[in-house]
Amino acid sequence: MNEREIKEQAIQLHKKLAGKIEIVSKVTINSAHDLSLAYTPGVAAPCLAIAQDKEASYEQTGRGNLVAVVTDGTAVLGLGDIGPEAAMPVMEGKALLFKQFAGIDAVPLCLATKDTDEIINIIKALEPTFGGINLEDIAAPRCFEIEERLKQELNIPVFHDDQHGTAIVILAAVINALRLVRKNMSHVKVVINGAGSAGIAIAKLLITAGMRDITLVDRAGILCTGEEWMNPCQALIAEATNHRKARGTLKDAVLDADVFIGVSGPGVLTGDMVRTMNNEPIVFAMANPTPEILPDEALAAGAAVVGTGRSDFPNQVNNVLAFPGIFRGALDIRATDITEEMKIAAAYAIANIISPNELTSDYVIPSALDKRVVESVAQAVSKAAIESGVVKK
Amino acid sequence: MNEREIKEQAIQLHKKLAGKIEIVSKVTINSAHDLSLAYTPGVAAPCLAIAQDKEASYEQTGRGNLVAVVTDGTAVLGLGDIGPEAAMPVMEGKALLFKQFAGIDAVPLCLATKDTDEIINIIKALEPTFGGINLEDIAAPRCFEIEERLKQELNIPVFHDDQHGTAIVILAAVINALRLVRKNMSHVKVVINGAGSAGIAIAKLLITAGMRDITLVDRAGILCTGEEWMNPCQALIAEATNHRKARGTLKDAVLDADVFIGVSGPGVLTGDMVRTMNNEPIVFAMANPTPEILPDEALAAGAAVVGTGRSDFPNQVNNVLAFPGIFRGALDIRATDITEEMKIAAAYAIANIISPNELTSDYVIPSALDKRVVESVAQAVSKAAIESGVVKK
Repeated sequence: MNEREIKEQAIQLHKKLAGKIEIVSKVTINSAHDLSLAYTPGVAAPCLAIAQDKEASYEQTGRGNLVAVVTDGTAVLGLGDIGPEAAMPVMEGKALLFKQFAGIDAVPLCLATKDTDEIINIIKALEPTFGGINLEDIAAPRCFEIEERLKQELNIPVFHDDQHGTAIVILAAVINALRLVRKNMSHVKVVINGAGSAGIAIAKLLITAGMRDITLVDRAGILCTGEEWMNPCQALIAEATNHRKARGTLKDAVLDADVFIGVSGPGVLTGDMVRTMNNEPIVFAMANPTPEILPDEALAAGAAVVGTGRSDFPNQVNNVLAFPGIFRGALDIRATDITEEMKIAAAYAIANIISPNELTSDYVIPSALDKRVVESVAQAVSKAAIESGVVKK
Repeated sequence: MNEREIKEQAIQLHKKLAGKIEIVSKVTINSAHDLSLAYTPGVAAPCLAIAQDKEASYEQTGRGNLVAVVTDGTAVLGLGDIGPEAAMPVMEGKALLFKQFAGIDAVPLCLATKDTDEIINIIKALEPTFGGINLEDIAAPRCFEIEERLKQELNIPVFHDDQHGTAIVILAAVINALRLVRKNMSHVKVVINGAGSAGIAIAKLLITAGMRDITLVDRAGILCTGEEWMNPCQALIAEATNHRKARGTLKDAVLDADVFIGVSGPGVLTGDMVRTMNNEPIVFAMANPTPEILPDEALAAGAAVVGTGRSDFPNQVNNVLAFPGIFRGALDIRATDITEEMKIAAAYAIANIISPNELTSDYVIPSALDKRVVESVAQAVSKAAIESGVVKK
């Protein structure tokens, strides 16, 4: 099916459904007695139980399984700032994936404000309603401050999927690709092209996971301490990467690199560039819908492993491998935060779905529809939450 | 079943359910193709359609059937300011009734702020997500300003159920009770005891419906222009009522009254007071769980019609008769507001469910579970919306 057909079918499907999710009652009211238990006067009893002890909200209401999917509609897919109304189809999609993959009730909330403080205040005010907050499609650098402050100020887990979901799945893919080519994480040279929220989050997580030689590149060139074009977030990550203080373009960066990770735009990595990489290079080209390099071209240039964001090529890097299990694991154990340890545990859980003898260059990442992933990730995340000491239960 | 048993069963039911509502996907993802239509890359098409024309959000998402049930948890049932976490069981109950009675998807949002401006700003920011806003259990006088400003500033219907839901059902009950005793709305003397948000809203709606002789009474006595104990909202309604400038207590107010409406506290209306009312007096005593006067006592004192808020007595005044049909009617026609005309139309639609020959002193209000009510109210509200000129469609 070509792109135009997908678009037309998607429009028809969305019109037919008029909303991909719905809110359903778990109880049916057939009598005055039913009404008196689920509503007045009986409902006063759970209300009072919670008034006495707020923690009872996890027992007497759906809060413990309820996540808000919050966006301001400023960085939706590759479409940019299309506004909160237009962001809703993506958020409904996220909510349906939360339910189908992890049994989590997710409420999409698309906000008509781009003000950092206002977004933070709104989400803080919503804390009593929810068990977790999934931030989605909020533009950088605003998304960093919003997530950071909410993580400090809320007692429920906060997760910006565009940053960490992507980073976790990429880390899982890199772990398996390196296993396949028998290279050691602490010795490889990694280049990340695209220094927005996803690129920076990937760099941070790879460092935490033990990688030492990482270079970020943006449109203006290699991120290097002292470059004046960098925004404050880029300046910060520049200090933690590029220890050789290299300057230049993507072409300069990829020379002798073991791993290329693209979260940028279509066609920016050429076959010639791949040929300058180290032996058995690994290429994850995730620009959507057109990757930084097409798999055929990368393979022809000698790539040992190639992955993209697309489902019609092997090795699809898809956030749906991470966020359902991350939240399932955090909610199950009533974690108050999502720590770096929990993210790393999630990445290894995803990677380990594929056993060493199953691993091939076309299969370093489990399928987005692999039903084993969620439970495996959830268990690893719960365990890491306990070890991180962020569990109230 | 006694009160303690209801409480215990309610706690058990809520614990068993852990949330009375859930969010369910309308599509199942079984293949990469399914995923590509409901999520990326296909989802970009509905997003772009809405970015081009915001009105498409009513076609491509669930917005047109989605209502936010918003509270700050400050006036929950008769329990008062129990906080947002503790308000949730009521809001979930409301959401399940929205779904069961009117097929409406309702999202409970319990806010951790009591600041009028902040509540208004939060709800304004949420406008792109929802087709309507149901305000719930927000304390007076804050609730008046919140509703008034939101009605001005939003393009979707806003409805404070504690005010208007109650007022509409009471008006329906009064219409039928007056039909039964053959008294004319424009000639009867009405006393409303309790000048909080519900009492004031009832007074306003009865005036709009054509009643001329209304007296409000609060704890401190009869509301009368010049009384210094009144808050600004009470002072305003005092000018529109009590034209005789009567002063005094409830006992003074009910002398010769045709209709008593109680939205106050237990046992404040005595049989002796009922005996001083006009012939064939009508008593709606809605304090919960213990009414202003028990039905037996009121009937023994000569009341022609008695109603309460309870399901174990005849003539239960229950908001569930109004809010599902009001929102159904408003959403169906995509009304931008809920006008006085729409409220009056809803009251007559509820009253007219009972035909003249069915009308008895024990049956002036349809059962809360009567399935005919919603559709009848919805149709009347849609029609009144068109006549009010608040329809964009």
